[in-house]
Amino acid sequence: MTELKILALSGSLRAGSYNTALLRAARRIGPGGMTIELYSGLGELPLYSQDLDTGTPPEAVTALRRHIAEADGLLIATPEHNSSVPAALKNAIDWASTGSSPLSGKPIAMAGASPGAFGSIRAQQALRQILAAIGSDVVVKPEVTVFRSHERFDDDGKLTDDFTASLLSDLLASLDRTIRSKRRIPPLTRT
Amino acid sequence: MTELKILALSGSLRAGSYNTALLRAARRIGPGGMTIELYSGLGELPLYSQDLDTGTPPEAVTALRRHIAEADGLLIATPEHNSSVPAALKNAIDWASTGSSPLSGKPIAMAGASPGAFGSIRAQQALRQILAAIGSDVVVKPEVTVFRSHERFDDDGKLTDDFTASLLSDLLASLDRTIRSKRRIPPLTRT
Repeated sequence: MTELKILALSGSLRAGSYNTALLRAARRIGPGGMTIELYSGLGELPLYSQDLDTGTPPEAVTALRRHIAEADGLLIATPEHNSSVPAALKNAIDWASTGSSPLSGKPIAMAGASPGAFGSIRAQQALRQILAAIGSDVVVKPEVTVFRSHERFDDDGKLTDDFTASLLSDLLASLDRTIRSKRRIPPLTRT
Repeated sequence: MTELKILALSGSLRAGSYNTALLRAARRIGPGGMTIELYSGLGELPLYSQDLDTGTPPEAVTALRRHIAEADGLLIATPEHNSSVPAALKNAIDWASTGSSPLSGKPIAMAGASPGAFGSIRAQQALRQILAAIGSDVVVKPEVTVFRSHERFDDDGKLTDDFTASLLSDLLASLDRTIRSKRRIPPLTRT
């Protein structure tokens, strides 16, 4: 198998989210041999409760866990809410860290966009700590912090900033290398 | 006004939660001149989305904001999920940090219980960072980390551990002082 399946999770539920727009851009930018599927089910998850985390959890939980388990890696784009990870993203992570715990050992690349000057860097730092506690295999570099995000997309949510596109491309290449090296899959030969 | 109204929020939605049990214990332990109301609406909040955060947000959001605004201070008890704040608690905080933002400047005391050896100390650290970003007035000491929580409550969820009760009492006294000193309310004279 040389084609990698990446599941993309947006930490924002907002329809016009820059983070979701960043994931859409990633689908166009990703290296050959990688398909990126944007997951849209985070808003359907109930708030995590151990009382619901039984052998037969809510359907949205089972779907999330299955999608993560079937993916070769994840790409997460997160906004920053109160200097940390948005509740919707933490909720998805908490659900995917119990039961079959598909996040354990999973290669993950992260990015983030925010209209402010720091591009969700504190949320990403908090996310790194959380994923480290779970034992995910998080790509270290590059850090993709899309600050002043409103200046980097057009009115249709299309990424227009070349530097961001280049960083995102490097991030995806790094995720690709992480997965292939870990699974001993040879790099795709570019012809 | 000398009677203080404290709103108690549990970070766990689990019916048999030790953190909720800790808040119930606080109602018995609190100093004179303080009433503690346990808020039960966190599980009814939708996942935070800016698209829902309009002039007329969901009813559960309005109720949460009103209860926080009307309280003189908060008491939060949090478990630890993946080394950080549970999604349900982060969700409530995110909702209460926008709009009228009743968390801003609000005196808050925190505690936490977990069956492990560290009593949710990492979750509390993350919670302190989040509340600092909002500008809440968080009580610094004592740190109430109820480790090995399953050994400190009886089968009915009643706190049986004297040391924990004493720490909790100190925490509530500290919250009481914080609120009264800030609002220039004279301490209640004990007779």
